[in-house]
Amino acid sequence: MGTKQDTGAPVKAGDLATPSLLADAGVLERNVATMAKVRPGLTLRPHVKAFKCTSLAAVLKEAGHTAFCCATTREVSGMVSAGLGNDLLLANEVIDITRLAVLSAHVTAGEARITVAVDSHEGIVAASAAGITEVLIDVDVGMPRCGCQPDEAGAVADAARAAGLHVRGVMGYEGHMMHEVNRTVREAGVVSSMSMLESAHDQVGGDVVSGGGTGTFDCNDTVNELQAGSYVLMDGDYARLGLPFEEGLTVTTTVISVGGGGHAVLDGGLKALAMDSGPPEVQGNGKVLFCADEHTTVVGSSWKVGDRVGLRPAHIDPTISKHEHIYLVDDIMSGGDAELVETWPVDLRGW
Amino acid sequence: MGTKQDTGAPVKAGDLATPSLLADAGVLERNVATMAKVRPGLTLRPHVKAFKCTSLAAVLKEAGHTAFCCATTREVSGMVSAGLGNDLLLANEVIDITRLAVLSAHVTAGEARITVAVDSHEGIVAASAAGITEVLIDVDVGMPRCGCQPDEAGAVADAARAAGLHVRGVMGYEGHMMHEVNRTVREAGVVSSMSMLESAHDQVGGDVVSGGGTGTFDCNDTVNELQAGSYVLMDGDYARLGLPFEEGLTVTTTVISVGGGGHAVLDGGLKALAMDSGPPEVQGNGKVLFCADEHTTVVGSSWKVGDRVGLRPAHIDPTISKHEHIYLVDDIMSGGDAELVETWPVDLRGW
Repeated sequence: MGTKQDTGAPVKAGDLATPSLLADAGVLERNVATMAKVRPGLTLRPHVKAFKCTSLAAVLKEAGHTAFCCATTREVSGMVSAGLGNDLLLANEVIDITRLAVLSAHVTAGEARITVAVDSHEGIVAASAAGITEVLIDVDVGMPRCGCQPDEAGAVADAARAAGLHVRGVMGYEGHMMHEVNRTVREAGVVSSMSMLESAHDQVGGDVVSGGGTGTFDCNDTVNELQAGSYVLMDGDYARLGLPFEEGLTVTTTVISVGGGGHAVLDGGLKALAMDSGPPEVQGNGKVLFCADEHTTVVGSSWKVGDRVGLRPAHIDPTISKHEHIYLVDDIMSGGDAELVETWPVDLRGW
Repeated sequence: MGTKQDTGAPVKAGDLATPSLLADAGVLERNVATMAKVRPGLTLRPHVKAFKCTSLAAVLKEAGHTAFCCATTREVSGMVSAGLGNDLLLANEVIDITRLAVLSAHVTAGEARITVAVDSHEGIVAASAAGITEVLIDVDVGMPRCGCQPDEAGAVADAARAAGLHVRGVMGYEGHMMHEVNRTVREAGVVSSMSMLESAHDQVGGDVVSGGGTGTFDCNDTVNELQAGSYVLMDGDYARLGLPFEEGLTVTTTVISVGGGGHAVLDGGLKALAMDSGPPEVQGNGKVLFCADEHTTVVGSSWKVGDRVGLRPAHIDPTISKHEHIYLVDDIMSGGDAELVETWPVDLRGW
């Protein structure tokens, strides 16, 4: 629990400079517990790209999830530095040999176990040249992003083995189903995608079948490790799915101006909130009129200059990556009166 | 000019890890010169929020623009640290006394001249309590963001003077006209907004009439200092206006995967590119299909794994603030062969 240096009194959210990113400690605890019941221990491989914070990853390790996914080599190295390198999967294609060599140095030094996704000849050559020892074959299961075609997976695995790489299994991300609101459509899509991944796994072999995410956590029965991350604090985009996870992240702002027409201007905007999934929602009454670089104009309530207003982001991952710290508080809904529990650096940002 | 340590050969854009933010040195030079012809010296007060980089601000100082706008107190302090504190305007309402006191300490130490925008009683009280000495009265000229109503400006100025503050004049930002594509509509809107600012100035007095931006640089004849910033490197959003400034910023990425359907996957996405004004455009042939956290899927050309692809952001300001460095290169259109001229830290990020 943070305390003020001068008085010893608890630090409150209202004492923090704005804009600041607040996370609800209770929501985090409940979301982690809810997921761990469905996906205990190593059946969940939390994806750190969602929150880019080793302190939060340590909470998940404490809950029994000791293997993690990363999207960038910087995330991998940061997790290793934080002592969380037990079993790290770089669930992304990287062909930069210099960066991959940093990862293999971690392995050589006995600091970590690191597995890298590959889907091409070039990826295999880069991994091998960099001294990477373990790979997963990444398979395209219906979303046009990374991954080889399912019927090519066996050949890619053969090429990897021929290059001296140990193939641990397959991964495939059904991202196109992740935000599908209609549960029936979502479930059917997952079945279709996972039949492709199973077909690839039949050719590739290995122990690991990795995939899935927050949106498919309870309807993907194929993967033996689920790559979910956003569930820890949720966002407006995932909230529409009616999952049993609560939203626990807001950007706290200060009203810096009140206009003649009744609008209020908050001191957090595009640089504090991701806009790819739409504008944020006002915590409590009110509606966002628009976001500018450093401002959000809100209407529909009566605010005065100096009031604190929370904005709930539509997309958690790129919102967190805009901030230097996550401030963990005891009750995000109590606004400025929420007490600070811990300050966590967002230490896995960048590339 | 950067050189490689081992060979002494020039560093090329293709040597940089991806995603990285590239700026074209020639475009920057030409855009700065074009603006300086219309708005020489102190008739331009460049807005550093657009690029958050003191090295780029130093280029503008060199071109004769020695007074700057800032949107955050961190930007102000960073400019002071870089020796660019000759005349800084915090063109934004800040009521955080702790932060404002940092600014007044710069002034007391003789490091800088700093003027703060105020539009309310609370803002005046905070500025005065923090030891701020100079203010501008911020006026709402038609965009629902900060600023008092034009007919209140005189009373706000009186209150500021009663609190012991020196009132240098007025500012008003016609942001609702800034991206208006129809020039006739844009010009008429500027006239209407600036008549409000003139009316406020009549009540307030003072030497400074500040406002405008890149989109109204050649049709705002009212302000005696123009607050433009984005013109230095432009973006897709401003490019639609047909202004005489060139686009000179791209996020350079690497093709990390090529799909069966002909799509290519680039290693830069939502965390490297602002999405508030839409997705980026592909430099050269090709089209963005979608952006994900760390990926952009593109179609319409034949790429292979390892190729470099540039993405031009739709909005420059929040794109730059996602990056640690701007890499200045000699010719952005030559892709990976562009030679590195300088590496500039984006040192004014955060709040």
